[in-house]
Amino acid sequence: MVIWMISEINKNFPEVFEECMKEFVPQAGLDTPVIDEAVSYSLFGGGKRLRPMLMAVSYEAFSGRPWEENRVLRAFMTALEMIHTYSLIHDDLPAMDDDDMRRGKRTNHIVFGEDIAILAGDALLNGAFEVMSGALLTADPDEARRGVRALAYIAGCSGVRGMVGGQAIDISGYAWKENRLIDMYEKKTGCLLAAAMTAGSVLAGASQEDVGRMEKCAFKTGVAFQVQDDLLDVTGDAEVIGKPVGSDEKRDQVTFVTLRGIEGAEKYADECLDEAMKCLEDISGDPAVLKKIIASLSGRRK
Amino acid sequence: MVIWMISEINKNFPEVFEECMKEFVPQAGLDTPVIDEAVSYSLFGGGKRLRPMLMAVSYEAFSGRPWEENRVLRAFMTALEMIHTYSLIHDDLPAMDDDDMRRGKRTNHIVFGEDIAILAGDALLNGAFEVMSGALLTADPDEARRGVRALAYIAGCSGVRGMVGGQAIDISGYAWKENRLIDMYEKKTGCLLAAAMTAGSVLAGASQEDVGRMEKCAFKTGVAFQVQDDLLDVTGDAEVIGKPVGSDEKRDQVTFVTLRGIEGAEKYADECLDEAMKCLEDISGDPAVLKKIIASLSGRRK
Repeated sequence: MVIWMISEINKNFPEVFEECMKEFVPQAGLDTPVIDEAVSYSLFGGGKRLRPMLMAVSYEAFSGRPWEENRVLRAFMTALEMIHTYSLIHDDLPAMDDDDMRRGKRTNHIVFGEDIAILAGDALLNGAFEVMSGALLTADPDEARRGVRALAYIAGCSGVRGMVGGQAIDISGYAWKENRLIDMYEKKTGCLLAAAMTAGSVLAGASQEDVGRMEKCAFKTGVAFQVQDDLLDVTGDAEVIGKPVGSDEKRDQVTFVTLRGIEGAEKYADECLDEAMKCLEDISGDPAVLKKIIASLSGRRK
Repeated sequence: MVIWMISEINKNFPEVFEECMKEFVPQAGLDTPVIDEAVSYSLFGGGKRLRPMLMAVSYEAFSGRPWEENRVLRAFMTALEMIHTYSLIHDDLPAMDDDDMRRGKRTNHIVFGEDIAILAGDALLNGAFEVMSGALLTADPDEARRGVRALAYIAGCSGVRGMVGGQAIDISGYAWKENRLIDMYEKKTGCLLAAAMTAGSVLAGASQEDVGRMEKCAFKTGVAFQVQDDLLDVTGDAEVIGKPVGSDEKRDQVTFVTLRGIEGAEKYADECLDEAMKCLEDISGDPAVLKKIIASLSGRRK
């Protein structure tokens, strides 16, 4: 079964998951369709779907069951991608990073205007909690109890002590020294990966110890991922990464590459990924697919 | 007890409730305090606290118990005020209504900048769900089950089929005829009042029929409230309403007063409040305090 899951996830996951999301995403259904269009434009606009994939694989690692079978899990995967998407739309706004391109397409506010983009982000963030709580209304008592834990975990990861806090560090210009940069990376990126991996584990009924190991693995992976973004901004190919190269330097952004140089940053990303792998050694579930995904991330910087 | 509750709610409720909120609102606790300051500036910046008050009174109407005793209820009241506050911050942004003043104070983006204001709104919306789900982690099973229902109801009311949808109608300029204006008012204002009154009822264990009556009452009250806002913009006192008079006309906003005139709008608001009162006649709980609040709203337009 593990082999089936690997191939399923690696090859068809983004398409299968897009179909799965359509079951859950709430629609305004107004005379004016603009808000539904703006939400769909960004939510169904491609992307690697790394967070829901990690949630699915974490669930499978502890439950031994395929993710498609569990409706609550599918709802939570959809919700997490909605949260990730809202954060991209708001981050791209003129008052924030002021980006015109994302995933090789024009950003939401360029297409729909700033007002609708703000509102589409709000709709996605709010909608994530509609989707999760809605799925729990029909869950059995054990599943609902685990679901409330997973929902609370996700909410914490995406809030001021998590992703929103990371964004606040970023726009306040406080991440000019290494410990703050790492704190920012843990919050901006690590937290949503942690939301994915812990929610998947909690929904599968993993022990508190295993959930803690998954959380640590996610934070290390998140920091590695973000350091690789810094590297890609210097060494990457604009067509592959879907945005212009050199944008960090252009806006005088302090990055891991600025602080440690290319080699130092590569070394640090590798160390983080090694530590992430080590966390997986100790879990009582089957870490094979998770290891494969994290190993594949180490090739991402080229 | 009813007499105690009336006086408690009318006189001290805003101060008592501000203290209550401090138990729940999540803090980022970063080296840079700006996001916590921006959140506190708007959340603890005064206001009538109508929504949490309606939730408290709805709970008391069906449970016969004072709101202060129920921790889950207090968390949900806090969360609803956080959702209301996020919506005000985002509505005031330059790309939306572009307002400089709110409740007699400078708006969030004027004080903290547009980027922090967007993020403070996100923090509040996300934080609302952190607060609610966090409170459910330690609730007993019955309370948790009712809590999931209340959370799902609130999420629905604040999302694209509710408040966000109302805002989308507004900024798309679609509310130029009466049925769309009423739809917009139900969504922009009625939905959060419905969230308050149904969540309070659900947490008190009210029947589905009673929850439905409370919901209808809230929608009628919301439309009346919004029509009164239209009237206040023409006939009100800038110091009392905390913003300039005549701002609707200045931006060519179609309102109920534009469509039906001052007398027609007054008549319609009264009809809505009458219908709201009628919904309360049939509930199996004690409607006395709710009726008093709704009656007091009819004097709001002077």
